Amino acid sequence: MIRIAVDAMSGDLGPRTAILAVLRLATSAASGVRFILVGERSVLERLLPATLPSSVSVHHAPSWVAMDDDPRAALRHGRETSMWRALDLVRTGQADACVSAGNTGALMAMGRYLLKSLPGIERPAICKAMPVSRGRTWMLDLGANPQATAEQLHQFALMGAVLATRELGRDAEVALLNVGVESGKGPEVVQAASRLMADDRRLHYIGYIEGDDIYTGRADVVVCDGFAGNVALKASEGVAKLIGEKLRSGIRSRWRYRLAVPLLMPLLRRWRTELDPGAYNGAIFLGLRRPVIKSHGGADEGAFAGALNVAIEQVRRRVTEHIETELAES
Amino acid sequence: MIRIAVDAMSGDLGPRTAILAVLRLATSAASGVRFILVGERSVLERLLPATLPSSVSVHHAPSWVAMDDDPRAALRHGRETSMWRALDLVRTGQADACVSAGNTGALMAMGRYLLKSLPGIERPAICKAMPVSRGRTWMLDLGANPQATAEQLHQFALMGAVLATRELGRDAEVALLNVGVESGKGPEVVQAASRLMADDRRLHYIGYIEGDDIYTGRADVVVCDGFAGNVALKASEGVAKLIGEKLRSGIRSRWRYRLAVPLLMPLLRRWRTELDPGAYNGAIFLGLRRPVIKSHGGADEGAFAGALNVAIEQVRRRVTEHIETELAES
Repeated sequence: MIRIAVDAMSGDLGPRTAILAVLRLATSAASGVRFILVGERSVLERLLPATLPSSVSVHHAPSWVAMDDDPRAALRHGRETSMWRALDLVRTGQADACVSAGNTGALMAMGRYLLKSLPGIERPAICKAMPVSRGRTWMLDLGANPQATAEQLHQFALMGAVLATRELGRDAEVALLNVGVESGKGPEVVQAASRLMADDRRLHYIGYIEGDDIYTGRADVVVCDGFAGNVALKASEGVAKLIGEKLRSGIRSRWRYRLAVPLLMPLLRRWRTELDPGAYNGAIFLGLRRPVIKSHGGADEGAFAGALNVAIEQVRRRVTEHIETELAES
Repeated sequence: MIRIAVDAMSGDLGPRTAILAVLRLATSAASGVRFILVGERSVLERLLPATLPSSVSVHHAPSWVAMDDDPRAALRHGRETSMWRALDLVRTGQADACVSAGNTGALMAMGRYLLKSLPGIERPAICKAMPVSRGRTWMLDLGANPQATAEQLHQFALMGAVLATRELGRDAEVALLNVGVESGKGPEVVQAASRLMADDRRLHYIGYIEGDDIYTGRADVVVCDGFAGNVALKASEGVAKLIGEKLRSGIRSRWRYRLAVPLLMPLLRRWRTELDPGAYNGAIFLGLRRPVIKSHGGADEGAFAGALNVAIEQVRRRVTEHIETELAES
């Protein structure tokens, strides 16, 4: 039995999104999974059906963290919030993983405080699957650590490799993001991380990779600090959005273009869900002792369900336990 | 009369590309511009027509810089190369700007050695126009300086603002790339640069911007270090390429999709040239005493002509002189 604690008061769209996503999974094939909706009971019950599926329960929390709350303030004063209570269910063993669409900084701060980092991990990192030419590539850190030491980048590589290896069922190939592929390129910290990774026999390290190669799938795992990762992810989202916009306005500009739309509709739909880097929802906070998954703040019901599935997979594949074992071998 | 020195032996596609681009502009409306093709005379003459347009001449250089040459070695031993000779024509006043599709590191190293940086500029930066929702946004640094101090980021901002202001004919709004828009976000060096930029009355500084906002056109100039800039640019190119690939293979997958292609063809073509971030060819080495323009190594004839036009505009708008004046006012 896998138990997922869901911070139901988080996200830009309110508790409705989390509730609909949970109900969708609870009534579909996801057997063997229980969902605990954490939030203001009266608010949640107003949105829930009179009879809940047996796999769904409500856990009361009187308050919530706002999207623009300062993470340190949320950590100091947030014990009554749905985010804290959801994480605390994981800490006390009443749940196996936590999903929230809330304030990223607060979720990381509370996650580190309540769940602690794995031994050997100085800083957890945010990791996400990106759509690539064939399949997926996992990228980390995507913003938890705007700066990272060579040792921390090395730890990100180890964690990402375990995650991708578990997902792919084969040894994952790991690359380090840089501004060129020749040795001697890039900042000293990146060069030092490259040496650590090349010397680590647990890693299948393939060297440097440039930004355009993230999307060719040349590596299964791309490692970088949270500044570069966040910039790469957001710039990618921005370009995808711009292309979508220009395509729509271009098609609207002439009648002959509009005639093509009915022919292409199924393709355009599939293409949208497949390719928007923001559509792969569910960022994993790797390096905490238990799985914590961040859903995009603006995620709709389907995307939130995607984040719930990421959490279920993390527990099912025992990713956290495998990272702990791998790190103990050093 | 504007005179452009063209390193004709550079680029992945050989001298043919540079020659065709020069001939295209020389025989078209670009009056008042002279082109000096620099390279091995026998190679160039074999590719040139028997009678050259009066605005095109050849300047001999016995050697050339290879794309994978080490920039420091190229600088030490490269006096016979077409890149060196083209830059030297600018240094001696025989040309007003230099265009090369060659080795970026060597071009920057030779540019700094032969042309020197402007007073007040510690490090030149690579700047490029990006396609955005409406119009263009200039971004720098795109890779010359993998690390930059707060003072250097401030200098990039001043240079980018002059360039964009000259191009737009109005005060350019400048933003600093960061992983969040709240003050206190991001690395200390970015926060320090933000304070310098906010205190500088020559700048119309609008604060932090995130990666996705590069493409909304919220700022006219986006400032970052060369690591983040290079990652953002290349990741953007990678996503655009991936989307193009998936669109093509999707359309090929079913007959009904193929039926739509003839209807959409003009749109798809326009869309490709408008939106590929790599298609805006011609990166400007801002901060040198004379304009040096880097064309993409894989640029075709049309894209190379685009880089030549960027060089012509730089000279015509006297961007370098305006940067020098602006910096002298500090």
